[in-house]
Amino acid sequence: VSDSPGVRRIGQVVGLRPEKRAEYLRLHAEVWPEVEAALRRANIRNYTIFLHGDLLFAYFEHTGDDLDADLAAVAADPVTREWWTHTEPCQRRLTDGAGGPWTDLTEVWHLD
Amino acid sequence: VSDSPGVRRIGQVVGLRPEKRAEYLRLHAEVWPEVEAALRRANIRNYTIFLHGDLLFAYFEHTGDDLDADLAAVAADPVTREWWTHTEPCQRRLTDGAGGPWTDLTEVWHLD
Repeated sequence: VSDSPGVRRIGQVVGLRPEKRAEYLRLHAEVWPEVEAALRRANIRNYTIFLHGDLLFAYFEHTGDDLDADLAAVAADPVTREWWTHTEPCQRRLTDGAGGPWTDLTEVWHLD
Repeated sequence: VSDSPGVRRIGQVVGLRPEKRAEYLRLHAEVWPEVEAALRRANIRNYTIFLHGDLLFAYFEHTGDDLDADLAAVAADPVTREWWTHTEPCQRRLTDGAGGPWTDLTEVWHLD
Protein backbone atom coordinates (compact mmCIF):
# COMPACT_ATOMS: atom_id res chain seq x y z
CA VAL A 1 0.00 0.00 0.00
CA SER A 2 1.05 3.55 -0.53
CA ASP A 3 2.04 4.22 3.05
CA SER A 4 4.43 1.29 3.25
CA PRO A 5 7.87 2.07 4.62
CA GLY A 6 10.26 2.70 1.77
CA VAL A 7 7.70 4.03 -0.69
CA ARG A 8 8.81 7.26 -2.27
CA ARG A 9 6.33 9.42 -4.18
CA ILE A 10 7.57 11.41 -7.15
CA GLY A 11 5.76 14.24 -8.94
CA GLN A 12 7.19 15.63 -12.16
CA VAL A 13 6.31 18.13 -14.87
CA VAL A 14 7.39 18.66 -18.45
CA GLY A 15 6.17 20.82 -21.31
CA LEU A 16 4.28 19.29 -24.23
CA ARG A 17 5.01 20.84 -27.61
CA PRO A 18 1.60 21.82 -29.01
CA GLU A 19 2.42 20.59 -32.50
CA LYS A 20 3.32 17.18 -31.04
CA ARG A 21 0.32 16.80 -28.79
CA ALA A 22 -1.53 14.34 -31.00
CA GLU A 23 1.59 12.23 -31.47
CA TYR A 24 2.28 12.13 -27.74
CA LEU A 25 -1.26 11.03 -26.99
CA ARG A 26 -1.14 8.41 -29.74
CA LEU A 27 2.12 6.99 -28.35
CA HIS A 28 0.68 6.84 -24.83
CA ALA A 29 -2.51 5.14 -25.94
CA GLU A 30 -0.29 2.10 -26.53
CA VAL A 31 2.97 2.32 -24.60
CA TRP A 32 5.38 -0.41 -25.65
CA PRO A 33 5.22 -3.41 -23.28
CA GLU A 34 9.01 -3.47 -22.95
CA VAL A 35 8.95 0.12 -21.71
CA GLU A 36 6.40 -0.74 -19.06
CA ALA A 37 8.38 -3.87 -18.12
CA ALA A 38 11.56 -1.82 -17.63
CA LEU A 39 9.68 0.50 -15.27
CA ARG A 40 8.33 -2.43 -13.27
CA ARG A 41 11.80 -3.97 -13.01
CA ALA A 42 12.93 -0.60 -11.63
CA ASN A 43 10.45 -0.88 -8.73
CA ILE A 44 8.24 1.83 -10.19
CA ARG A 45 4.47 1.45 -9.85
CA ASN A 46 1.23 3.40 -9.81
CA TYR A 47 2.54 5.70 -12.53
CA THR A 48 0.08 8.15 -14.04
CA ILE A 49 0.63 10.96 -16.55
CA PHE A 50 -1.94 13.77 -16.72
CA LEU A 51 -2.37 16.54 -19.28
CA HIS A 52 -3.07 20.19 -18.50
CA GLY A 53 -2.90 22.41 -21.56
CA ASP A 54 0.72 22.31 -22.69
CA LEU A 55 1.95 20.72 -19.47
CA LEU A 56 2.28 17.07 -18.56
CA PHE A 57 2.19 16.10 -14.88
CA ALA A 58 3.43 12.70 -13.74
CA TYR A 59 2.96 10.87 -10.45
CA PHE A 60 4.65 7.60 -9.59
CA GLU A 61 5.83 5.58 -6.65
CA HIS A 62 9.17 3.88 -6.11
CA THR A 63 9.37 0.92 -3.78
CA GLY A 64 13.06 0.02 -4.00
CA ASP A 65 16.03 1.05 -1.93
CA ASP A 66 17.98 2.93 -4.62
CA LEU A 67 15.96 5.18 -6.89
CA ASP A 68 19.02 6.55 -8.70
CA ALA A 69 20.25 3.05 -9.57
CA ASP A 70 16.78 1.98 -10.69
CA LEU A 71 16.37 5.06 -12.88
CA ALA A 72 19.83 4.46 -14.35
CA ALA A 73 18.76 0.93 -15.25
CA VAL A 74 15.67 2.31 -17.01
CA ALA A 75 17.85 4.78 -18.90
CA ALA A 76 20.17 1.95 -19.98
CA ASP A 77 17.37 -0.21 -21.35
CA PRO A 78 17.70 -0.30 -25.16
CA VAL A 79 13.97 -0.41 -25.89
CA THR A 80 13.33 2.47 -23.49
CA ARG A 81 16.03 4.48 -25.25
CA GLU A 82 14.34 3.82 -28.58
CA TRP A 83 10.98 4.81 -27.04
CA TRP A 84 12.48 8.08 -25.85
CA THR A 85 13.54 8.93 -29.41
CA HIS A 86 9.79 9.15 -30.07
CA THR A 87 8.67 10.89 -26.88
CA GLU A 88 11.47 13.37 -26.24
CA PRO A 89 10.81 15.43 -29.40
CA CYS A 90 7.27 15.93 -28.04
CA GLN A 91 8.52 17.35 -24.75
CA ARG A 92 9.96 20.67 -23.70
CA ARG A 93 12.19 20.81 -20.64
CA LEU A 94 10.97 23.52 -18.24
CA THR A 95 14.08 23.93 -16.11
CA ASP A 96 17.81 23.56 -16.45
CA GLY A 97 19.34 20.51 -14.89
CA ALA A 98 20.86 17.13 -15.41
CA GLY A 99 18.94 13.99 -16.19
CA GLY A 100 15.88 13.61 -18.38
CA PRO A 101 13.50 16.30 -19.55
CA TRP A 102 11.12 15.96 -16.60
CA THR A 103 11.47 18.32 -13.62
CA ASP A 104 10.95 16.88 -10.14
CA LEU A 105 8.34 18.70 -8.06
CA THR A 106 8.43 19.60 -4.39
CA GLU A 107 5.96 17.77 -2.15
CA VAL A 108 3.85 20.18 -0.10
CA TRP A 109 1.62 17.73 1.76
CA HIS A 110 0.66 14.07 1.82
CA LEU A 111 -2.23 12.09 3.29
CA ASP A 112 -1.78 8.30 3.26
CA VAL B 1 -3.60 -1.45 -3.74
CA SER B 2 -3.79 1.09 -6.48
CA ASP B 3 -5.02 -1.30 -9.15
CA SER B 4 -8.00 -2.46 -7.13
CA PRO B 5 -11.32 -2.40 -8.94
CA GLY B 6 -13.16 0.78 -8.09
CA VAL B 7 -10.10 2.94 -7.48
CA ARG B 8 -10.30 6.21 -9.37
CA ARG B 9 -7.21 8.38 -9.75
CA ILE B 10 -7.64 12.14 -9.84
CA GLY B 11 -5.08 14.72 -10.92
CA GLN B 12 -5.80 18.41 -10.38
CA VAL B 13 -4.07 21.73 -10.78
CA VAL B 14 -4.59 25.19 -9.32
CA GLY B 15 -2.61 28.40 -9.33
CA LEU B 16 -0.78 29.57 -6.21
CA ARG B 17 -0.76 33.31 -5.63
CA PRO B 18 2.93 34.23 -5.26
CA GLU B 19 2.28 36.60 -2.37
CA LYS B 20 0.48 33.77 -0.51
CA ARG B 21 3.06 31.09 -1.15
CA ALA B 22 4.57 31.16 2.34
CA GLU B 23 1.15 31.08 3.96
CA TYR B 24 0.01 28.15 1.84
CA LEU B 25 3.14 26.18 2.72
CA ARG B 26 2.76 27.03 6.40
CA LEU B 27 -0.87 25.86 6.40
CA HIS B 28 0.10 22.60 4.71
CA ALA B 29 2.93 21.90 7.09
CA GLU B 30 0.20 21.24 9.65
CA VAL B 31 -3.14 20.49 8.00
CA TRP B 32 -5.96 20.41 10.55
CA PRO B 33 -6.72 16.83 11.66
CA GLU B 34 -10.46 17.36 11.10
CA VAL B 35 -9.76 18.26 7.47
CA GLU B 36 -7.77 15.08 6.95
CA ALA B 37 -10.48 13.07 8.75
CA ALA B 38 -13.17 14.46 6.43
CA LEU B 39 -11.12 13.36 3.42
CA ARG B 40 -10.67 9.86 4.82
CA ARG B 41 -14.41 9.59 5.53
CA ALA B 42 -14.92 10.51 1.88
CA ASN B 43 -12.92 7.46 0.74
CA ILE B 44 -10.01 9.63 -0.38
CA ARG B 45 -6.50 8.31 0.17
CA ASN B 46 -2.93 8.62 -1.07
CA TYR B 47 -3.39 12.36 -1.55
CA THR B 48 -0.30 14.37 -2.41
CA ILE B 49 0.07 18.03 -3.34
CA PHE B 50 3.19 19.11 -5.23
CA LEU B 51 4.50 22.59 -6.01
CA HIS B 52 5.84 23.76 -9.37
CA GLY B 53 6.53 27.47 -9.42
CA ASP B 54 3.15 29.16 -9.14
CA LEU B 55 1.23 25.94 -9.80
CA LEU B 56 0.01 23.32 -7.38
CA PHE B 57 -0.46 19.78 -8.71
CA ALA B 58 -2.56 17.34 -6.67
CA TYR B 59 -2.91 13.58 -7.00
CA PHE B 60 -5.35 11.47 -5.01
CA GLU B 61 -7.27 8.22 -5.17
CA HIS B 62 -10.94 7.61 -4.47
CA THR B 63 -12.04 4.15 -3.40
CA GLY B 64 -15.78 4.64 -2.96
CA ASP B 65 -18.68 4.17 -5.32
CA ASP B 66 -19.85 7.79 -5.55
CA LEU B 67 -17.15 10.42 -5.87
CA ASP B 68 -19.61 13.29 -6.31
CA ALA B 69 -21.46 12.40 -3.12
CA ASP B 70 -18.22 11.98 -1.20
CA LEU B 71 -16.88 15.32 -2.43
CA ALA B 72 -20.20 16.95 -1.49
CA ALA B 73 -19.82 15.56 2.03
CA VAL B 74 -16.33 17.07 2.25
CA ALA B 75 -17.70 20.41 1.05
CA ALA B 76 -20.43 20.28 3.70
CA ASP B 77 -18.02 19.62 6.56
CA PRO B 78 -17.92 22.75 8.75
CA VAL B 79 -14.24 22.47 9.69
CA THR B 80 -13.28 21.92 6.05
CA ARG B 81 -15.27 25.02 5.10
CA GLU B 82 -13.38 27.00 7.73
CA TRP B 83 -10.08 25.55 6.43
CA TRP B 84 -10.98 26.67 2.92
CA THR B 85 -11.40 30.26 4.11
CA HIS B 86 -7.65 30.09 4.74
CA THR B 87 -6.55 28.17 1.65
CA GLU B 88 -8.79 29.59 -1.07
CA PRO B 89 -7.35 33.13 -0.89
CA CYS B 90 -3.96 31.51 -1.66
CA GLN B 91 -5.24 29.89 -4.82
CA ARG B 92 -6.04 31.13 -8.28
CA ARG B 93 -8.52 29.19 -10.40
CA LEU B 94 -7.01 28.38 -13.82
CA THR B 95 -10.17 27.54 -15.73
CA ASP B 96 -13.82 28.44 -15.68
CA GLY B 97 -16.18 25.89 -14.25
CA ALA B 98 -18.32 24.82 -11.40
CA GLY B 99 -17.08 23.41 -8.13
CA GLY B 100 -13.96 24.31 -6.24
CA PRO B 101 -10.91 26.16 -7.50
CA TRP B 102 -9.04 23.05 -8.61
CA THR B 103 -9.18 21.95 -12.27
CA ASP B 104 -9.40 18.23 -13.00
CA LEU B 105 -6.72 16.95 -15.37
CA THR B 106 -7.04 14.45 -18.19
CA GLU B 107 -5.29 11.12 -17.68
CA VAL B 108 -2.94 10.30 -20.56
CA TRP B 109 -1.53 6.97 -19.38
CA HIS B 110 -1.38 4.77 -16.30
CA LEU B 111 0.80 1.86 -15.18
CA ASP B 112 -0.44 -0.03 -12.13
